[in-house]
Amino acid sequence: LQGYGGTNETPLESGVVQLNAGDKNIQGVIRLVQSNPSKCIIDGTIDGLPKGKHKLYIHELGDISQDCDSCGNILGALSQQTEKPLGDLGEIDVASDGRADFRLTNERIKVWEMIGRSIVVHRGSQDCSTPDIRPKLSCGIIARSAGLFQNSAKKICSC
Amino acid sequence: LQGYGGTNETPLESGVVQLNAGDKNIQGVIRLVQSNPSKCIIDGTIDGLPKGKHKLYIHELGDISQDCDSCGNILGALSQQTEKPLGDLGEIDVASDGRADFRLTNERIKVWEMIGRSIVVHRGSQDCSTPDIRPKLSCGIIARSAGLFQNSAKKICSC
Ligand SMILES: [Zn+2]
Ligand SMILES: [Zn+2]
Repeated sequence: LQGYGGTNETPLESGVVQLNAGDKNIQGVIRLVQSNPSKCIIDGTIDGLPKGKHKLYIHELGDISQDCDSCGNILGALSQQTEKPLGDLGEIDVASDGRADFRLTNERIKVWEMIGRSIVVHRGSQDCSTPDIRPKLSCGIIARSAGLFQNSAKKICSC
Repeated sequence: LQGYGGTNETPLESGVVQLNAGDKNIQGVIRLVQSNPSKCIIDGTIDGLPKGKHKLYIHELGDISQDCDSCGNILGALSQQTEKPLGDLGEIDVASDGRADFRLTNERIKVWEMIGRSIVVHRGSQDCSTPDIRPKLSCGIIARSAGLFQNSAKKICSC
């Protein structure tokens, strides 16, 4: 694996998202793990969603100072007109209890290039929702998390 | 400026932190701007803090799934034993109304290497607090924000 450009840290293996902006009734955690150089696994559980299919997108920025309105465009929406944007992670399916349990694989993104951006849950499965409803249901920042292979017991400072 | 390793994006200029984990009575926003290749400006306003001096630290990870307990060590605490760790951003001073307004400059960190980590407000101005009190008051993820020089009007997708 290539490391995280410019730092002396161990290679970045995984990210984690707390969905805590947008609709506060929606709560969830999403993990991103680079299982090998060309495969990223995105799995998670989200509660409080409307029943049916919705889409997950990576947006360019992780700025949630205005909830999901400050996180910029869908990643790659400006550069790729003909194919689906890089930030399109695919669909999730919500059961009647409001829960989505999902596991997506992606061969286009690298976890370490996604860190600091956001994941946004878009209402519905269309690429562009109808303008009369707010498409963004919930969002959260893609944060660095301890890699699977890092020794998290190696702490000298607990503060 | 060097870009953000490995991506085709415009160079990363700034980060933003919403302090929203830990003590929920503490609220604040911190901005990090790389004003030139060797100077990072960290400014912000935090409300709800105990009066007196406290310290800001960058911790290795941005994982706040267990509030401020899952964000790892202070950045550089393991590698640098003799000088102050890279993550030590310095002191802030809280007035009797519980507000800190601050502007710190730092010539050691680069914004793009800090993205996805966290900023933690540590109680008191000692490097290690006494063990009988919880040192971490509040924390938040360092997210990518629109750079000062990026044209944020360049949007083709408002969703
Ligand atoms: Zn600490
Ligand atoms: Zn969107």
